[in-house]
Amino acid sequence: MTARARSRLSAEREGEILRAVLELLREHGYEALTMDLVAARTRSSKATLYRQWESKARLVLVALRRAGGTPGNGGDIDTGSVAGDLRELMRRAGDHVVQNTELLRALALELHRGTELRETFREVILLPEIEVLRTILDRGVARGEITAGGPSAEEITYMLMGAIVGRPLLEEREADAEFLVRCTDTMVLPALGVPPRP
Amino acid sequence: MTARARSRLSAEREGEILRAVLELLREHGYEALTMDLVAARTRSSKATLYRQWESKARLVLVALRRAGGTPGNGGDIDTGSVAGDLRELMRRAGDHVVQNTELLRALALELHRGTELRETFREVILLPEIEVLRTILDRGVARGEITAGGPSAEEITYMLMGAIVGRPLLEEREADAEFLVRCTDTMVLPALGVPPRP
Repeated sequence: MTARARSRLSAEREGEILRAVLELLREHGYEALTMDLVAARTRSSKATLYRQWESKARLVLVALRRAGGTPGNGGDIDTGSVAGDLRELMRRAGDHVVQNTELLRALALELHRGTELRETFREVILLPEIEVLRTILDRGVARGEITAGGPSAEEITYMLMGAIVGRPLLEEREADAEFLVRCTDTMVLPALGVPPRP
Repeated sequence: MTARARSRLSAEREGEILRAVLELLREHGYEALTMDLVAARTRSSKATLYRQWESKARLVLVALRRAGGTPGNGGDIDTGSVAGDLRELMRRAGDHVVQNTELLRALALELHRGTELRETFREVILLPEIEVLRTILDRGVARGEITAGGPSAEEITYMLMGAIVGRPLLEEREADAEFLVRCTDTMVLPALGVPPRP
């Protein structure tokens, strides 16, 4: 193995592979997706894929997170207010849900099926999302917009998950950006003690 | 068919059959559970089962709802305050989750797999639960405890679903009664503008 082969992939090459993974997921579903398929489609070696992403579960989840935009899906958000930040975060989450409905459904199925994917899901998707929320809340506390004893980043994540999981069951519609922004105004901001329309 | 055979089942007989359905679900899982199995175990005819419950999906969901206690899982709750009512409702929901973890996991899998079960789930589980919540909120508005413009019964259901779905993913623990009562105090009551500990 040459030194070059052992080095990390370029950001461009990484992006290419992650986009290919999403394509393959749409075509084959999670279960039928193999590292061989990814290697063939992206003309890379399985060794490279495993070195970079460790497992199929991680590769798929990283690809899914990347599809939602920036790492952590909102680490760049800073509108100057908790209400503005949360609305922007939920808007992105809603767009992500609508654009990746089939993938998210396949993922949910896998998450319910067993624990194999759960740990990776927590690490790659859930904890970064909670970290983004925590940053938004911490800034709000520092600005005096909200008090420190309110709902935690974890609890707001539960509210968001409930809206995303629940709407298709109750209304047979995906939780799109408009819906999640409305939920922010009617559930999340009131729970934080922030007037929804300042 | 005699007049007796055509008549509705007694409440006692109904209860027997629904308990047997839960047993069979635990033994076989949802997919492998057949009306033949239920008929054999309960010594009833499939015709009786279909006449009373229409489909396997409905039979299973009615059995599951019944396992949670009273019809609608809380139509009898009336503690005199919104906080008391919601805490009691969530306490029962948490006990239900812990007692029926495997069944709920099988159900979630089925719900994600397709739409077959969804409509029945909405009708048998979700809408009665929302109706109970709406009654609790309406009483709170009538007593002047909460204002009419706050989170709806549907939105509180989303919060509850998020807590139930999210906790196992984030903490690898089921959403038990203690956890859901805490969520009531930190998420639901603040969103309604009710001080959690009056």
